[in-house]
Amino acid sequence: MGVVVPLEESREKAASIGPLVELTAAPMQRVNDIILSNAGSNVDLIPQIARHLIDSGGKRLRPMLTIAAAEMCGYEGSGHISLAASVEFMHTATLLHDDVVDESDTRRGKEAARLLWGNQASVLVGDYLLGKAFMMMVEVGSLEALGILSQAASVIAEGEVMQLEAAQNLATTEDEYLAVIQAKTAALFSAAAEVGPVLAERERAERAALRSFGLNLGLAFQLIDDALDYNGDADDLGKDVGDDLREGKVTLPVILAYRRGDDDERAFWRRVLEQGRIDDGDLETALAMLRAHEAIADTVARARHYGAVSREALAPFPATPHKEALIEAVDFCINRVS
Amino acid sequence: MGVVVPLEESREKAASIGPLVELTAAPMQRVNDIILSNAGSNVDLIPQIARHLIDSGGKRLRPMLTIAAAEMCGYEGSGHISLAASVEFMHTATLLHDDVVDESDTRRGKEAARLLWGNQASVLVGDYLLGKAFMMMVEVGSLEALGILSQAASVIAEGEVMQLEAAQNLATTEDEYLAVIQAKTAALFSAAAEVGPVLAERERAERAALRSFGLNLGLAFQLIDDALDYNGDADDLGKDVGDDLREGKVTLPVILAYRRGDDDERAFWRRVLEQGRIDDGDLETALAMLRAHEAIADTVARARHYGAVSREALAPFPATPHKEALIEAVDFCINRVS
Repeated sequence: MGVVVPLEESREKAASIGPLVELTAAPMQRVNDIILSNAGSNVDLIPQIARHLIDSGGKRLRPMLTIAAAEMCGYEGSGHISLAASVEFMHTATLLHDDVVDESDTRRGKEAARLLWGNQASVLVGDYLLGKAFMMMVEVGSLEALGILSQAASVIAEGEVMQLEAAQNLATTEDEYLAVIQAKTAALFSAAAEVGPVLAERERAERAALRSFGLNLGLAFQLIDDALDYNGDADDLGKDVGDDLREGKVTLPVILAYRRGDDDERAFWRRVLEQGRIDDGDLETALAMLRAHEAIADTVARARHYGAVSREALAPFPATPHKEALIEAVDFCINRVS
Repeated sequence: MGVVVPLEESREKAASIGPLVELTAAPMQRVNDIILSNAGSNVDLIPQIARHLIDSGGKRLRPMLTIAAAEMCGYEGSGHISLAASVEFMHTATLLHDDVVDESDTRRGKEAARLLWGNQASVLVGDYLLGKAFMMMVEVGSLEALGILSQAASVIAEGEVMQLEAAQNLATTEDEYLAVIQAKTAALFSAAAEVGPVLAERERAERAALRSFGLNLGLAFQLIDDALDYNGDADDLGKDVGDDLREGKVTLPVILAYRRGDDDERAFWRRVLEQGRIDDGDLETALAMLRAHEAIADTVARARHYGAVSREALAPFPATPHKEALIEAVDFCINRVS
């Protein structure tokens, strides 16, 4: 029986992060060195906690965006190395604070720092890394890049507060959810990509293009993350399936299933997510409802939409290996859902 | 019976923060406006929490240092307004995170934000204010000021981690304690004062002078704070007498009393501070031991020493109302111990 595979789906299946990783391998090695030297401190706890996260094999997608965007724009200096390291530090600081806020037990497949060293140290080491991120940016000397990244820092925190307010609230609309993920996730992707053309002193249109590329990639990335939370493999995910359910997070899959469900189903979601009363078998029930209402598939469809906008944003740039690698990275991010 | 009042003590008794407040009143009004407009957000929780702290009548000593230092150095622009607001935001962010780390119940005489809105929101709103602080600094456009303040942000967090490691450890030495308060408190006083001559583009020696002024004032300020914790009036203090004892904080008064005490006294301190077993009447016992060993008086003596160094640091500057007001502010800070 022949199956018609839609064009987008087939290109995603073949997509790999490999080309982006290879193209940025040499500068990313320098980013790594800067990260390790700046995560040091005479205060023992700081490098211990920082390295626990830094060494735990995150994909380093955000700093790779900075490197690739700068190089695609013809930047030949070394400021993109420090900015990429700053972006990763901002991200790591956010993860440390997130785990405290979410009371998470695992992060990237390892025990969360807050369980090993306590919430207190996680808060403070996050602050330390954020301070270091700004120090590294200042060394690069681009006030424009500093403006973009410091604004991202505020917006990320704003998004996290919005998420906190939306938590355990099933009345959250799809638009409100989008505003949260745009702030908490897409803002850093956007800033990471935009500082590339800023360093290269490219014109406004190209900065706007890479800002849009990053923003839409970030939206797609978070949508897929939220889909994976109900659909992934715990080993690939670095966290457990159903974590969002246990933490009372109202993500798009749940928003769709709740709206499409009958009264009994809505009562189920309210008990589990709003009242936090989770019984054995509830995760399986939730997964069955999400499937029945095609909530995961439609979340992935939304991600595909933003992926298409993200790829489109790169149209003004000539075909280069960097451009191709960035486009394939978009496909790869969406393809994470198996 | 005649009493010989030492010169330093008599000058402190008469000291007031009034002249500094009056001299900086007009620019501080503008600082206030910037603070309020930047504490806004569409996310309701952010202005609620930010204003809870901002309106609760902190002395605004740190931003006043920035204003007075800049004006003393002949600065005529308006960048000092935004930098002063940034300094206050950094301080407010630190307070929010500190209260989470210390599990404090009160701050500036009000219920701590973490009790009203939760630890989670306190962490995130602190992050938001820190991001905003950097955005305001970027607008001023001085990379040198940005470097000084971003380094202070890292050092403050480092100091808080050091304090966490030293907590409940009576083996902490006086030097280790000094390293903690230099990082967690004096670094921001120092940076707040140093950015004044930086904006005014004054020469290195004057920047170093104001950096030293701020650093030593910060040390004196924290020493007095730690003395007041065992000697103050709860209303003036904005927190309760003995908070440090209850939180297991090993501050200089305790370090001195512990070292000077006999075996029974040391056992008492270990039970209360290291094991955290506090019984009724223990605060009174602690206060009596601190008095018997002159631990408070000697803590104040250390503060006087740093106050003298701080005043001395201003020697290169000609006599002006700003210089006099800054010197009197040093005396006032020490004079807080009644």
